[in-house]
Amino acid sequence: MTDVKELATRAKAASRKLGRVDRATKDRALLATARLLRDEAGRIAEANAKDMERARASGLAGALVDRLEMNAKGIAATAAGVEYVASLADPVGSRDSMQRLQNGLLIGRQRLPLGVIAMIYEARPNVTIDAAVLCLKAGNAVLLRGGKEAAETNRVLGELLRQALTEAGLPEDAVGIVAPTDREGIKEMVSLTGLIDLAIPRGGEGLIRFVAENARVPVLNHYKGVCHLFLDEGCNPKMAQDLTINGKVSRPGVCNALECLLVHENVARSILPDLGRALLERGVQIRGDSRTCELVTGAVRATDDDWGTEFLDLVLAVKVVRDIDGAIEHIERYGSNHTEAICTESHTRAQRWLREVDASCVIVNASTRFNDGGQLGLGAEIGISTSKLHAYGPMGLEGLTAEKWVVLGDGQIRN
Amino acid sequence: MTDVKELATRAKAASRKLGRVDRATKDRALLATARLLRDEAGRIAEANAKDMERARASGLAGALVDRLEMNAKGIAATAAGVEYVASLADPVGSRDSMQRLQNGLLIGRQRLPLGVIAMIYEARPNVTIDAAVLCLKAGNAVLLRGGKEAAETNRVLGELLRQALTEAGLPEDAVGIVAPTDREGIKEMVSLTGLIDLAIPRGGEGLIRFVAENARVPVLNHYKGVCHLFLDEGCNPKMAQDLTINGKVSRPGVCNALECLLVHENVARSILPDLGRALLERGVQIRGDSRTCELVTGAVRATDDDWGTEFLDLVLAVKVVRDIDGAIEHIERYGSNHTEAICTESHTRAQRWLREVDASCVIVNASTRFNDGGQLGLGAEIGISTSKLHAYGPMGLEGLTAEKWVVLGDGQIRN
Repeated sequence: MTDVKELATRAKAASRKLGRVDRATKDRALLATARLLRDEAGRIAEANAKDMERARASGLAGALVDRLEMNAKGIAATAAGVEYVASLADPVGSRDSMQRLQNGLLIGRQRLPLGVIAMIYEARPNVTIDAAVLCLKAGNAVLLRGGKEAAETNRVLGELLRQALTEAGLPEDAVGIVAPTDREGIKEMVSLTGLIDLAIPRGGEGLIRFVAENARVPVLNHYKGVCHLFLDEGCNPKMAQDLTINGKVSRPGVCNALECLLVHENVARSILPDLGRALLERGVQIRGDSRTCELVTGAVRATDDDWGTEFLDLVLAVKVVRDIDGAIEHIERYGSNHTEAICTESHTRAQRWLREVDASCVIVNASTRFNDGGQLGLGAEIGISTSKLHAYGPMGLEGLTAEKWVVLGDGQIRN
Repeated sequence: MTDVKELATRAKAASRKLGRVDRATKDRALLATARLLRDEAGRIAEANAKDMERARASGLAGALVDRLEMNAKGIAATAAGVEYVASLADPVGSRDSMQRLQNGLLIGRQRLPLGVIAMIYEARPNVTIDAAVLCLKAGNAVLLRGGKEAAETNRVLGELLRQALTEAGLPEDAVGIVAPTDREGIKEMVSLTGLIDLAIPRGGEGLIRFVAENARVPVLNHYKGVCHLFLDEGCNPKMAQDLTINGKVSRPGVCNALECLLVHENVARSILPDLGRALLERGVQIRGDSRTCELVTGAVRATDDDWGTEFLDLVLAVKVVRDIDGAIEHIERYGSNHTEAICTESHTRAQRWLREVDASCVIVNASTRFNDGGQLGLGAEIGISTSKLHAYGPMGLEGLTAEKWVVLGDGQIRN
């Protein structure tokens, strides 16, 4: 048996136990994790220094080396995050409202864990802890396959997670650390039907596509976020400016940042000159269509490649469209099913937007930045799904569980 | 472009329109379908006669030829089923309770269609109509790839569905009839990522496994139903007998029929002799372990292959187990995640059963036959999922939709 199959087989056995334990036991493991992170901060830093040193030596770009770092402040924040997840309600075993049928049967649904989750991710080692504790809290075992750049750090974090499980009386195999291998290794991992119940790839689009195309187990995709904001005819110009600047400037490197502004042609002249100036003042490069370039001094002409691009930077594509239909058509063609917002005073068009735009989060008169598990009340998220199956949008503890039917009778038989 | 890709491309375009229309328009298409089924019963019967004739000529077994039949009674029942689906509420656009956050945002979730569903099935032509109307009612386009045995019938049914869509002013391409091809054709179909949103295979285990192993699009699996009933220590003997006989005898050929009885060793002597006699009287063959064969005159000795087998016939495997843990271990090893029932008077063990057994439907003191979309209040079902992702158990209209987040603000930006 290969290493990864061995780990998955053990994780499957551990998942059966983990799926049955009560919340207090799982929380003990989480709180022990937080304590160990703090107690062993020195050991983590040491391993992390090795990863960063090796990354620098291999010529990795500075920004990517920085992403590897797990310093004292980062460790403390991660530990606090673990304690926060421990404070969240346990989804497992919760039942929705039971209803009594005419024949006296009482029926409803009850949450259960999925089983074994395979996390496949790159760089940032804090994902190791964040993902593991969410999986464990929801009663799942987890296989963690991080990137090779963070291998030393991830190995130590994995040992701490396993130690915490043992301290809580839970099987340590509920967390398996898969050594980073080439893509063939990933392919083998996501082919383990019957052992792995769900694969969640997080990282660059190339990694995600590779997993999606090679998996035999179900995959939750977290592709790019190409988020649009449509400024409708009659919208409030002040609100239009606030939402655009917040969407683009507050944190340009994240998936819910604004990448493309669509403007109704009847308000382009009244809104775009001031808005363009405000964006340029904040260092945003504007890549506009011809009409935008007429109205905004300093805008550069967009190329075809700019539509549908996730810039993750202070760059904004801007296009003037004929109306809401033009905006929806543009999003159908270039959107990524992530987050799509409208700024409007029209009730009818707001309702059309909510109904007709296909995205994991559709927004009226608020910033695209709100599509986030924390902001939407999930407590914590393991990612944002842009595929509709199982979960669409931010995925928290509930997204890591399923529901089975429960039927309570007193001897009913079927005719 | 190949034929199936062309059909899928057109279905995708049609799905955008279908996802936006109101309930009344969709119901008009459904009611027109029911009317056309009745009006064109002669044409359907003619096509069906050709299929059956060809099937007989090719030497298909009699029972399989019978499954192909769509006679006047079957057509009437199918038409009535379509009218019933038209009477069900439209899941699309429904919102769960919206909650107001501290910052004034109003958030919740709203149902939307999945897009394009690929149904891949064998034999029974009524599935063509049943599946299509469920998909359409939930706002999805559908590609129907039936078996070659029913090709003529399915072609006519597909034409009627497309005519009904046209009559209702909807794009006829929302229903695509895929000509039956070899497995390579199925493989091509389930590789159309970006065009097909979900594949649902229905039929023999071989077909389902082929789809699961070759798909690049998400798949909902409907594997076999190896359903167990555990007779606990202290259970009501009369109830034990009722549930066993109903589970096994009422309709042995369906997936929620009972296939294996597990009996607590402390009640084996008091329950099995009478129960065995009652089963044998009803023509059930009992394949028992050694203890069962001691207690039931006429039982035959089970082989290892009998555990975990879906007999779909008047055959029941019977095993004496040490206690509830022995029953759960047996189910973990041989169950199919379909339906698992306990007959017990113990509250504690009933709760353990509901919590610890991993099946799409867990039942206390009622027949396994209740795991069915109609019985559980879904109105109609497109199948029973035994995979936990997206849907677990009977899948009706809701299972053919997803939920997106909606966020209503009045200018909120994120700090």
